Amino acid sequence: MANSDRPSADISHVYRGTFIHSTQQTALQILEDQLLGVDTDGKIAFIEKGAELNRLSQSFGFSPSEVTQLAQHEFFMPGLVDTHIHAPQYCYAGTALDMPLLQWLNTYTFPVESRFKDLEFARRVYTQVVQRTLRNGTTTACYFATIHTDASLLLGQIANDFGQRALVGKVCMDRNNCVKHYKETNQECQEETRRFIAELLNKKYPLVRPVVTPRFAPSCTGALLGQLGAIAKNNNLHIQSHISENAEEVKLVKELFPESESYTDVYHKYNLLTDKTVMAHGCYLSDAELTLFRETGAALSHCPNSNISLCSGVLDVRNVLKHKVKLGLGTDVAGGYSASMLDAVRRALDTSKVLTIQDPDHQTLTFEEVFRLATLGGSHALSLDDHTGNFEVGKDFDALRVNVAAADGPIDMIQCEGPKVILEKFLNLGDDRNIAEVFVAGRKVVPFSPSLNIASMSVNGTGS
Amino acid sequence: MANSDRPSADISHVYRGTFIHSTQQTALQILEDQLLGVDTDGKIAFIEKGAELNRLSQSFGFSPSEVTQLAQHEFFMPGLVDTHIHAPQYCYAGTALDMPLLQWLNTYTFPVESRFKDLEFARRVYTQVVQRTLRNGTTTACYFATIHTDASLLLGQIANDFGQRALVGKVCMDRNNCVKHYKETNQECQEETRRFIAELLNKKYPLVRPVVTPRFAPSCTGALLGQLGAIAKNNNLHIQSHISENAEEVKLVKELFPESESYTDVYHKYNLLTDKTVMAHGCYLSDAELTLFRETGAALSHCPNSNISLCSGVLDVRNVLKHKVKLGLGTDVAGGYSASMLDAVRRALDTSKVLTIQDPDHQTLTFEEVFRLATLGGSHALSLDDHTGNFEVGKDFDALRVNVAAADGPIDMIQCEGPKVILEKFLNLGDDRNIAEVFVAGRKVVPFSPSLNIASMSVNGTGS
Ligand SMILES: [Zn+2]
Ligand SMILES: [Zn+2]
Repeated sequence: MANSDRPSADISHVYRGTFIHSTQQTALQILEDQLLGVDTDGKIAFIEKGAELNRLSQSFGFSPSEVTQLAQHEFFMPGLVDTHIHAPQYCYAGTALDMPLLQWLNTYTFPVESRFKDLEFARRVYTQVVQRTLRNGTTTACYFATIHTDASLLLGQIANDFGQRALVGKVCMDRNNCVKHYKETNQECQEETRRFIAELLNKKYPLVRPVVTPRFAPSCTGALLGQLGAIAKNNNLHIQSHISENAEEVKLVKELFPESESYTDVYHKYNLLTDKTVMAHGCYLSDAELTLFRETGAALSHCPNSNISLCSGVLDVRNVLKHKVKLGLGTDVAGGYSASMLDAVRRALDTSKVLTIQDPDHQTLTFEEVFRLATLGGSHALSLDDHTGNFEVGKDFDALRVNVAAADGPIDMIQCEGPKVILEKFLNLGDDRNIAEVFVAGRKVVPFSPSLNIASMSVNGTGS
Repeated sequence: MANSDRPSADISHVYRGTFIHSTQQTALQILEDQLLGVDTDGKIAFIEKGAELNRLSQSFGFSPSEVTQLAQHEFFMPGLVDTHIHAPQYCYAGTALDMPLLQWLNTYTFPVESRFKDLEFARRVYTQVVQRTLRNGTTTACYFATIHTDASLLLGQIANDFGQRALVGKVCMDRNNCVKHYKETNQECQEETRRFIAELLNKKYPLVRPVVTPRFAPSCTGALLGQLGAIAKNNNLHIQSHISENAEEVKLVKELFPESESYTDVYHKYNLLTDKTVMAHGCYLSDAELTLFRETGAALSHCPNSNISLCSGVLDVRNVLKHKVKLGLGTDVAGGYSASMLDAVRRALDTSKVLTIQDPDHQTLTFEEVFRLATLGGSHALSLDDHTGNFEVGKDFDALRVNVAAADGPIDMIQCEGPKVILEKFLNLGDDRNIAEVFVAGRKVVPFSPSLNIASMSVNGTGS
């Protein structure tokens, strides 16, 4: 691996130790005794063997004494990418999992989301969800907010303040007859979406971008879907929505859009399937629909906790991968009860193993493959893989410093283990206590800086 | 609820606040503003409404100023009962989950278990697993050890030292051709089992009992099974083993015991199905076999993490309950990767929800029902429900003091919630950080007493 002799920016940090990441070719690449340099722009300037220290220090102009050495039981891995999470629903995470999707939306979700016109309530919940997901190692999150433009802008601001890479969507829905006041007219949807995009882009947050967000086909008219497709196209924006999560929902879409061949066709027809689209779930997609995903470059977000918790369905990830559809993992808070991508990793493995129990010929996902889905796969699904997802020179340094043997943590290390075993223990048993530091674009975002902690404390009361 | 005016023992502690537990009639009983008194024998002397403070304090002779008031977001629940856990396998928990049962045993389990002839290694691992499970709220554990008598006795000693209620089994297996040195002759099995039982009983540990433990039918000759059945009967002992975990194993048992009608019939024939028996798994039991369980009073331990992680099968818990078979939950470390019964609760719900996805008519388990399985159900399955499992007067005080809003814990309380929502959040999102104190028979066992911490530190090194 050759580096230019004239690096474009100064080196701000150099780390030495074990780096574990994925590449397109290899689900799990373990790099032991490596030197990784981060430049002042937060980008990875080099990653090379430890033996190259002298050459690198001269070439990049840093002193060997400035190198930070990882301790035993520590390693760096890429930050986790949550490709689908509903920020407002965090306030009831871990509860309300006793009914299927459509009833669940009307009973729990819409009443709660309608409260986010209250900006102080929104600030409290959004601060919590950004802090919590960062502590859990989510360096990139693709958020649904609510229909409220100002609260959605606030979510973007909070993500920016705490340094999380985020796509933020103001939700659009002009068809909802169940909860009063929690829908917009078609005209409001368009105007507010335009305002949301313009104001968020105008903030020039370096890591936060708007994403066009029709909730899902059943809560949008065809007219709205077409308008949102046009807005996304004209502004070259990301798009997110839900697809084929639950059998009843699939049936409803067939009734609401009788002219479309399939659920996927509904979105395709309205120009909502692009190579910057991510659709959550897809449990019931046909092979033909998966082919349409591949042809358009649209991605899927697999949210296994949610799929199980709401009894929605079981996505056959192996089949999605065989169709070469881009795929990441999502928590889908609060249909998924956990705001941790480590949970998404575990549940993705569980779901694949359930398919193997049903059919022993099913090729079970390995933990290495699921590790890739949670990192590089997610960044690919969000079309952010030029910037993040693994430790390639030139990408932003989005990384977790993991300490498997953290004091008072959840893992007992009984004997000396190699890095692959240590990673597997972390993926299966670890939690935020094992994530010593979190970096996004080279900036240390966990532990939180004291000024941010104070800011969050002031809005963090339980209201009790 | 009337109490005797002359309590049999003095009151040592009185707590006031919310108590949540199960009864035979009610899966979830929430008792708000209650007073619970623990006597000097560690038994529950009374549990009554807070308004009865004056009468109770006079009747039981304590001062109202001595009452410990729970804080907001705190409640007491019964200690968790792990009905099936392999203590030695804790050393590879969270790894080695990439092959089915029989290969997994030969590749990972038997080589590791054979190391437990080394008592210092055993001390290190057993100290860790007892500490870890106590921190996770397991007040009662039903342990498999290894074939080594002295190491198994050591496990009993460590459980006693830390104050955990435990059934401890020295494993018996006289049929294993795959890993050298990890089996016994039939005669060794009998002699060592007798020695194990005699020496463990001789220690007179108040909360630790031996359990007769044939590993499972494929690793035992019929002769051994018969001898163990006789030993259990003659000493009125508990029995534990495995049954019908994996399809390949069921087939193997059919080949090894051609004269038996079913897997259950093998154990029944050798007098190993009694009302003090607990059998792990049972994924593939027929209705006729479940009926035999009910008739004999034998119990099942449902270990959903293990069943999924090793792609073993899916137990239909609803069907087991319909057959009125006693049922508890187990972690089955390390086929199950987690040593937390909270994980077992979550995975039991997942497994039931997967069955609902497959068949919408399946009656999904509720979180209230699974809460009962993890507490009262477990104590019932282990035939310990006279002593523990809920907050009935006269039972031992085995309890967790839960603080859902623990500082730096995994749960954000955004608004004031009622006790049912708080419990649900704890079951879905909580971890050891939310378990402020653990009591077994009235003794506070977590946080560990400093003397025990020092003891464990000295054997706790990572060997690195
Ligand atoms: Zn969603
Ligand atoms: Zn087992």
